[in-house]
Amino acid sequence: MCEKFEQVSEAVPKAAASNPYGPNPSDFLSNVGSFQVIESTLREGEQFANAFFTTEKKIEIAKALDDFGVDYIELTSPVASEQSRADCEAICKLGLKAKILTHIRCHMDDAKVAVETGVDGVDVVIGTSSFLRQYSHGKDMNYISKQAVEVIEFVKSKGLEIRFSSEDSFRSDLVDLLNIYKTVDKIGVNRIGIADTVGCANPRQVYELVRTLKSVISSSTEIECHFHNDTGCAIANAYTALEGGAKLIDTSVLGIGERNGITPLGALMARMIVSAPEYVKNKYKLHKIRDIENLVADAVQVNIPFNNPITGFCAFTHKAGIHAKAILANPSTYEIINPNDFGLTRYIHFANRLTGWNAIKSRVDQLNLHLTDAQCKEVTAKIKKLGDIRPLNIDDVDSIIKDFHQEVNTPAVTYKENANGDADVEAINLDGPSAKKQKK
Amino acid sequence: MCEKFEQVSEAVPKAAASNPYGPNPSDFLSNVGSFQVIESTLREGEQFANAFFTTEKKIEIAKALDDFGVDYIELTSPVASEQSRADCEAICKLGLKAKILTHIRCHMDDAKVAVETGVDGVDVVIGTSSFLRQYSHGKDMNYISKQAVEVIEFVKSKGLEIRFSSEDSFRSDLVDLLNIYKTVDKIGVNRIGIADTVGCANPRQVYELVRTLKSVISSSTEIECHFHNDTGCAIANAYTALEGGAKLIDTSVLGIGERNGITPLGALMARMIVSAPEYVKNKYKLHKIRDIENLVADAVQVNIPFNNPITGFCAFTHKAGIHAKAILANPSTYEIINPNDFGLTRYIHFANRLTGWNAIKSRVDQLNLHLTDAQCKEVTAKIKKLGDIRPLNIDDVDSIIKDFHQEVNTPAVTYKENANGDADVEAINLDGPSAKKQKK
Repeated sequence: MCEKFEQVSEAVPKAAASNPYGPNPSDFLSNVGSFQVIESTLREGEQFANAFFTTEKKIEIAKALDDFGVDYIELTSPVASEQSRADCEAICKLGLKAKILTHIRCHMDDAKVAVETGVDGVDVVIGTSSFLRQYSHGKDMNYISKQAVEVIEFVKSKGLEIRFSSEDSFRSDLVDLLNIYKTVDKIGVNRIGIADTVGCANPRQVYELVRTLKSVISSSTEIECHFHNDTGCAIANAYTALEGGAKLIDTSVLGIGERNGITPLGALMARMIVSAPEYVKNKYKLHKIRDIENLVADAVQVNIPFNNPITGFCAFTHKAGIHAKAILANPSTYEIINPNDFGLTRYIHFANRLTGWNAIKSRVDQLNLHLTDAQCKEVTAKIKKLGDIRPLNIDDVDSIIKDFHQEVNTPAVTYKENANGDADVEAINLDGPSAKKQKK
Repeated sequence: MCEKFEQVSEAVPKAAASNPYGPNPSDFLSNVGSFQVIESTLREGEQFANAFFTTEKKIEIAKALDDFGVDYIELTSPVASEQSRADCEAICKLGLKAKILTHIRCHMDDAKVAVETGVDGVDVVIGTSSFLRQYSHGKDMNYISKQAVEVIEFVKSKGLEIRFSSEDSFRSDLVDLLNIYKTVDKIGVNRIGIADTVGCANPRQVYELVRTLKSVISSSTEIECHFHNDTGCAIANAYTALEGGAKLIDTSVLGIGERNGITPLGALMARMIVSAPEYVKNKYKLHKIRDIENLVADAVQVNIPFNNPITGFCAFTHKAGIHAKAILANPSTYEIINPNDFGLTRYIHFANRLTGWNAIKSRVDQLNLHLTDAQCKEVTAKIKKLGDIRPLNIDDVDSIIKDFHQEVNTPAVTYKENANGDADVEAINLDGPSAKKQKK
């Protein structure tokens, strides 16, 4: 029902030449133009209901993510199962450009196994909310603090990167949080993590917490953020976290993870290319995103959501007549993302009752036919009329256009035999569609 | 691979008894706890690539939305096609509780048709960005202003509600925007609309624009917001708009619309129930959301996205062992939304290698079997071992549990005929799984 259109020139009107979606100058700690990705499809993503990754599939995914350009790849804890440990070791041996991390509970038993796998760094996490302290591990903040220090010092002694994260940070007591972050920052960690484990946080809350945390920790310690998507804010929360001064965002391909998952890698790219186009285009192989999403979608047996940013089947499809008109004149009018940057193309959906004559005129040109603007408007009315009765496909529209074109351009003549039996042209049929107008 | 669990009690720890996701007290203009929905599935949604709604389907959808409790239903312009006009009239005659709106270009030709359809109000829109002024209608701000005043006064003279919206507001010149909004506010409009037509806005930008606009218009004029989802921020932007003082959010079912659509109705409910639980639960029939989404998904031939908030197949599925443990103790530990509020249930996914013994113990109880904690840990290890080799289903796990249970609880005996031909019990087989431990 839609047709690929040739790329048209994308002039930017003068007034919009600067980028109003770039980093806000008032966010002096912003990392919008210098963010990094911790890709967790092979950790958070393994907690997705449908996920069962074989060793081969894990390696295939890790290589694809590395090729795409992610900064870190995070793997399931080696203590989760025997195979998890073996897979972690196998991926560390691949010699990828991305640094390899594994994600463990804040516990010496786990840390001892983790440091032997060959990872570049260890991500430790412990629940700090009253919920988790009461219903998960049952420990108080003093105990958490003591345990954190022990694990961090151990991992550091092995020369590995270390991240300390609270879990359920947005339901944790702020004083508790700042205390423990300050404690681990003093010992020296590479990253401090904030996790919206239940997906409850909203963007301005995120910005406030990141800004507050920035004022407590040393400038050499980076902030990493992990956002669940239960309330649909995981992408926006990631963005405001970067505005506030966080540096690293946890993602997974298509967002797969516990429940409905976390910030999706592809959607984050959609957000970030709008705000930091050069940084994103230079750093990540954006045209690979579709293949990576297909790879993971196949592995976990889901479909790409119809409304997925960038790769959803209609992400660059324009339908209403008024939209099609402007898109034909300049795609930036109704597109903030250029599909070409992702190796994709736009579609103008002209076979429907909302179509407009500009879209139809463009189709007429594609068919290499010639109609005046007035004729295009007339044939558009015919198409809209049929579109009111039933869904149209491209063939329907093309037939209507071709019939109309023939009626207009091939004068229908009536032959009348003259006395000699020869055929003379008697009259040009003026009932052709645009002829009507000419008669008026 | 997962099983429905009984609802367990949901005690809230003392420290979390107040709602930290409620309206921020510093947002003194916030409408988080008093927002309204303008449901646009039958307007914006009709611009979705796959949409072709028959009159019957439109009526079915309108009735479902009305029953759900939306405040307004917005319909395609009556000038889009002859059937669009007839459908608009038909829906106006249904006598729904929701107010009926139609959405037109800011043009007297359109307005004259619109006011005759029987609608309660008219939503007018005109492009104000340099892109739209150059590539769509080609008019300057003076012309726009003059036209807006004429249309607004005409619609008001008919006693109908009127909304004036700019299009592509976030790429419009701020001074232009404030000028035109101030002009139309002076004549008197019910609502002023902000539209992120290309889906480029980010949450803090939205908050700023809404707050600024609030300071320019009269307190009786409400702000309505329309957010596209190209960069994945449509839900978060809606939320921050309400924080800033906007009152009405445009939604569509599953977010269907141009390209990858707008703020989805269901996802907005997910966001808002976390922040204003009583308001949302009292106002909207939340348990109908799944049926409404299925109705629209069928009509436009798409699947519910696997990661959809609330109704995605795994939105309330918990997998990792550490999550399952806490969820069994108190679901709020890892759930910010109670699935019961939407007529749904949670699942604990225990048939996988990331499972933990608490989840397995719970399954043992469900099967009405009896194992000690030590025995549960032992059988869990067996399940994880098989889970390392291949994906598991519930039957796999149940078989392992049942076999294990039988070995432990039914002493395997060897029969040896005695001289009389009777069978005597000779030995209790101590090779049963937990018997091993007993031997140590």
